[in-house]
Amino acid sequence: MTKVESQIKNSNTDVLIIGAGPSGLMAATWLARAGVPFRIIDKRSDKIFSGQADGLQSRTLEVFQSFSGSSFDMTGLDSAWKMANHMIELCFWNPDENGNLVRSSRIPDSIPGISRFQQIVIHQGYIERWFDETIKNFSEGQSKVERPYLPISLSIDESKVEDKDAYAVKVLVKNLASEDVSNPEQFNAKVANGLYRQFEGDQERFYSNSIDIEHDPNVNVDDYEIINCKYVLGADGAHSWVRKQLGIDMEGESTDFVWGVLDAVPITDFPDIRHRCAIHSLESGSVMVIPRENDLVRLYIQLKEVPRDPLTTTDVSDNDSKEHAKGRIDRSKITPELILKNAQDIFKPFKFEIEDIDWFTGYQIGQRVSPKFSKFNRVFISGDACHTHSPKAGQGMNVSMMDTFNLGFKLALVCKGLAKLDILETYESERIEVAKELIAFDHKLSRLFSGKPMIPNSQAFQDGVDMDEFHKVFQKGGEFASGTIVDYADSLLIDKSLTHPVDEDGNSFSSIAKKVAVGRRLNSTLIECQADGRPIHIADRILSDGRFRVLVFAGDVNSYPQNLKILEEFDTFLKSDKHFSKKYTPVNALDNSVIDIITIHGSKRHDVEIFDFPEFTRPTDHKHRRDYWRLYTGIDSTYHEGDINAYEYYGIDTKNGAIIVVRPDGYVAKITNFDSNGLHQIDQYFDKFMIPQNSNVLTPKDKLINDRDRFVKPLLAV
Amino acid sequence: MTKVESQIKNSNTDVLIIGAGPSGLMAATWLARAGVPFRIIDKRSDKIFSGQADGLQSRTLEVFQSFSGSSFDMTGLDSAWKMANHMIELCFWNPDENGNLVRSSRIPDSIPGISRFQQIVIHQGYIERWFDETIKNFSEGQSKVERPYLPISLSIDESKVEDKDAYAVKVLVKNLASEDVSNPEQFNAKVANGLYRQFEGDQERFYSNSIDIEHDPNVNVDDYEIINCKYVLGADGAHSWVRKQLGIDMEGESTDFVWGVLDAVPITDFPDIRHRCAIHSLESGSVMVIPRENDLVRLYIQLKEVPRDPLTTTDVSDNDSKEHAKGRIDRSKITPELILKNAQDIFKPFKFEIEDIDWFTGYQIGQRVSPKFSKFNRVFISGDACHTHSPKAGQGMNVSMMDTFNLGFKLALVCKGLAKLDILETYESERIEVAKELIAFDHKLSRLFSGKPMIPNSQAFQDGVDMDEFHKVFQKGGEFASGTIVDYADSLLIDKSLTHPVDEDGNSFSSIAKKVAVGRRLNSTLIECQADGRPIHIADRILSDGRFRVLVFAGDVNSYPQNLKILEEFDTFLKSDKHFSKKYTPVNALDNSVIDIITIHGSKRHDVEIFDFPEFTRPTDHKHRRDYWRLYTGIDSTYHEGDINAYEYYGIDTKNGAIIVVRPDGYVAKITNFDSNGLHQIDQYFDKFMIPQNSNVLTPKDKLINDRDRFVKPLLAV
Repeated sequence: MTKVESQIKNSNTDVLIIGAGPSGLMAATWLARAGVPFRIIDKRSDKIFSGQADGLQSRTLEVFQSFSGSSFDMTGLDSAWKMANHMIELCFWNPDENGNLVRSSRIPDSIPGISRFQQIVIHQGYIERWFDETIKNFSEGQSKVERPYLPISLSIDESKVEDKDAYAVKVLVKNLASEDVSNPEQFNAKVANGLYRQFEGDQERFYSNSIDIEHDPNVNVDDYEIINCKYVLGADGAHSWVRKQLGIDMEGESTDFVWGVLDAVPITDFPDIRHRCAIHSLESGSVMVIPRENDLVRLYIQLKEVPRDPLTTTDVSDNDSKEHAKGRIDRSKITPELILKNAQDIFKPFKFEIEDIDWFTGYQIGQRVSPKFSKFNRVFISGDACHTHSPKAGQGMNVSMMDTFNLGFKLALVCKGLAKLDILETYESERIEVAKELIAFDHKLSRLFSGKPMIPNSQAFQDGVDMDEFHKVFQKGGEFASGTIVDYADSLLIDKSLTHPVDEDGNSFSSIAKKVAVGRRLNSTLIECQADGRPIHIADRILSDGRFRVLVFAGDVNSYPQNLKILEEFDTFLKSDKHFSKKYTPVNALDNSVIDIITIHGSKRHDVEIFDFPEFTRPTDHKHRRDYWRLYTGIDSTYHEGDINAYEYYGIDTKNGAIIVVRPDGYVAKITNFDSNGLHQIDQYFDKFMIPQNSNVLTPKDKLINDRDRFVKPLLAV
Repeated sequence: MTKVESQIKNSNTDVLIIGAGPSGLMAATWLARAGVPFRIIDKRSDKIFSGQADGLQSRTLEVFQSFSGSSFDMTGLDSAWKMANHMIELCFWNPDENGNLVRSSRIPDSIPGISRFQQIVIHQGYIERWFDETIKNFSEGQSKVERPYLPISLSIDESKVEDKDAYAVKVLVKNLASEDVSNPEQFNAKVANGLYRQFEGDQERFYSNSIDIEHDPNVNVDDYEIINCKYVLGADGAHSWVRKQLGIDMEGESTDFVWGVLDAVPITDFPDIRHRCAIHSLESGSVMVIPRENDLVRLYIQLKEVPRDPLTTTDVSDNDSKEHAKGRIDRSKITPELILKNAQDIFKPFKFEIEDIDWFTGYQIGQRVSPKFSKFNRVFISGDACHTHSPKAGQGMNVSMMDTFNLGFKLALVCKGLAKLDILETYESERIEVAKELIAFDHKLSRLFSGKPMIPNSQAFQDGVDMDEFHKVFQKGGEFASGTIVDYADSLLIDKSLTHPVDEDGNSFSSIAKKVAVGRRLNSTLIECQADGRPIHIADRILSDGRFRVLVFAGDVNSYPQNLKILEEFDTFLKSDKHFSKKYTPVNALDNSVIDIITIHGSKRHDVEIFDFPEFTRPTDHKHRRDYWRLYTGIDSTYHEGDINAYEYYGIDTKNGAIIVVRPDGYVAKITNFDSNGLHQIDQYFDKFMIPQNSNVLTPKDKLINDRDRFVKPLLAV
């Protein structure tokens, strides 16, 4: 340690998150939910107030919902569904055989049936605010994001990376509060815009004067802090500082296509301005229409001619593939007037004017991905820090949040001492595949979007984009874009044995629960509580609170009384310290605080009584109070929500039943038979990565904050 | 004015609300929503933290939803549906022919189909907090409830009551902040309870030393304030101070039946403890089970023997009917132990124990109602101040809030100068009938509940309560209790011409919209926006924002092109200053800020285009920005929410159409034909009570705060 360093304040935290955009905030949400010590810093002093990303996909909304279960206030992420603009339909407009712009087809914007939620749009500032509020809710009212804090240096002590309790990463940070780091280009401009971030990033601004704390006489050590961390997450954007410290380059290419983005309230007689539209004009380029909240409409507009700087060698950096670079775009030439002019040409013969502009930016289409998402399982990167692409499919922010939704619960399990460090490997293996699929999808879609249209029954533009193909790619892409079909491969946390591929895409559906794919998120359907008759979505019963779930589909116990016998066997099995239920739970913790076992039988609710079932389906706690939220029926006619049939929905036989293990992130980890061997299979699954807790006694601070709330607010390992 | 008075601070407000319970807070919510100056004071320094009322009925939830439309944050009243416990089923338990307690039948707790919402339960403290937050949202972040403030005197200047601009009521209030007015009995007790309020009120405590500001040398004039008001609302509870100032007595009777109330987490093997239950034991009395949030269960338990004070003459006050009084209940004898003991006897043979008690109280069953709800249309009373009864049907808090939901918009219209003072008369005429029905309902139900059960096929208890009759009264009562069938009579604000009674209860259904009853709230069904294809509940389009709505059901314009002709005629009509649309709207206000005209056609969305329809269905504002939220279809197949058919739901012919006028509180004011005469009829309706605004130019402060939000946040008369 140097002399100056020894004067600097030192502190410890389990996880340091660098970057408080959606990706970093999602990680923070998990850690706050699980009660893991963490810090989250951002170099900017300001939050986002307009523009930026805006689409929220079905899976993202499912995840938002999973953090805002029934017992929390509404101030958090579930505001999204209410406040955002809902997009219902996607309309395709292109030239007819006479070259006139016409609506050629319409499709649902979200594919019906793939989720409870459909794509919505709202600006990123709201989303970040809701995250703040949600994290605060989980942190006893404490705000968590610290800004403006700049990371200065990062070092990993390789000798310690295998020791799970070690603070193996040291990060030097600087509090910039005393410096002027507002965003002059953004905030002094006539109209707020994102050009600065888009084309150059602003790392240079922060790092322009190399910081030399050893020799600079002006250094005030009080501005600095050394944070010793077990783990570091770099969620610090496309120009990621963390990625550079790890020495990881982005790989990929850029194109000649330049697009502008405009958020405004348009004045137009175009009839579909409140629908999502993909418009290909004959010769003036393309536009994507995204209707938004507060009467705003976002337009992604292809720019025909954008002045560029002359090509210099320094431009051909790691971030630009050499064969495509034509010189950097001169961003000062991208003005609202230029973008509007292009839009007006494309919309012809419809009138298109604007009174108020909310925000604008421009971007050059390109796709890049990092070959590595982590180092030593101690430092991770996520979001734009490891994948960038064009924004039109509304994927960037969503995939970035899903990166850390994947990582967050794994960090929590490891930090809590419940799971082995090895599970962190699955972050990269699971998410890098998603990033690659995303890049391929964007590559295909953006080229079709930017190309000129082929005109039906005409000799003109025969080398153009076939509008039927474009329509098909969009339609098929909707499934991918929704985020609901992400399929994680076999790993320490996903066990695809007992499954075999049944669909044309080779997805691993089980033969036991024929419509459930191991490796995908469990889609939600209604079940009904035996004790109070309330129908609830299964997803709302298996919230993101850090616990694994074992869903016991016990079949129709009325028609098949032997199924009750199996449940009695389970009762004995689960009481044993040797098996998963007790083995991985600290001795004085509530019995379901690590692995939550839920029984869903297949008889009508009125045909059975709660006390027909063995104790593990309706256990009592240390105060003899019963937990009524472990026993459900999957088949019934409800009073207000129609017929429900979870057995049919999941393809489970009411005689044979099934057992489904669900990870804390809602992904199906394993499917096995409803028999005594099934539970042994589950033992084997958990044995691979969980740490036995039989002698672990929780300290008072790890206890439930309020044990009255134990059923509705189960905390991770409390 | 006396010498001391002249030293006291004077201030003006349009409306002073005395009492910040649910009834007062609902009035405040309306006034805040409409931007009317008001104050709300409460003599207690503390909010409620446990116990008290807890049931929220269907209609109440509809109203909550109507204040929390799509553009507001979730921090307000719509938290109720998410956080409360949902009651699904009501189970009846009574002795079988052998005298053993058995479940005899089950019915849905809320009647399927009568509303989007079903009855839920959560304690009053949450509800008051949500009101606070909602009012704050509507008041630019300002908190509004002032406490502890005690009203000292009230006087009405009769010479001014006809002058709508006059501050005709003077209220002297005292700020108690410097005194100790905490609630010792409630908060020093081992278990929080409501006995003090229930049996004696606590007015005596506040008024025990008569306040004589003229002669008391210790008076600090800074503690006092004279508030000059246009209107005063007394929402100050069963022992209402305001009611006493008006010289109005309560009328009614009490009974010998005494019940205890207990909120606790029970330890029991009774299988239906998470259902609402009505239990009649053979000889130990009755219990009502209300499962609640956080695993709590509320029990209403009949107490067999309660010690009473000897009868004294002072007990036979206006509040006790003389023939029934047996002496006041000695409330110190009502203990959790006594209530639990009674419960255990009733629940036998089931085990019933308790570890944690949250709250308890006791009450003597009685029904009382005020003969008058207002004086000079200047001072009003609402809620418990004008009707009290037993709590088991979950009506008290709900009806109290509905009182002021009725009054609030009327006060707002008058204070805004939009409607004549006369409309305030309809508050008493509409709500006194509801109060009387409520009293009758409670009278019947509570006697059946408190009586011993008749045993089937047995000679014993032949004079007992017939359980089948009890079941029927409950089932039928569910419709009334839901609050959805309140039926206001013909008045200045309800026009039942063109309707004739068609159902067996004599309700006034129209022949034009056969399933819509004039005088009742418009039940909600889905409609679909023509411009963006989003299905929304009609109730979510006609939120409680102070505006009247004219719903133009234009029929299937595709099959009946003449209907488009009628719409063209309407376009001309509505542009004229002589007719309701412009006549009652201030000249520089947005065109739909007082009367909002919504067209709901009956063609499929894809069969028509927005520009097929005349301009009033898709108007533009002063900045040429189009309002896309005025044109809907009532018939379509949606992508995610099934088929919708508002025409069938309301009984409207797709050829003939209909026009429905809805009041700001969602009640159907008038139904008329879809033809040019129809609009003249509507002119006549508004002419009776609205004030022409043709020369009224709004001052800048009355303008829209943010005109970007004009479509989603329409303010009253802005």
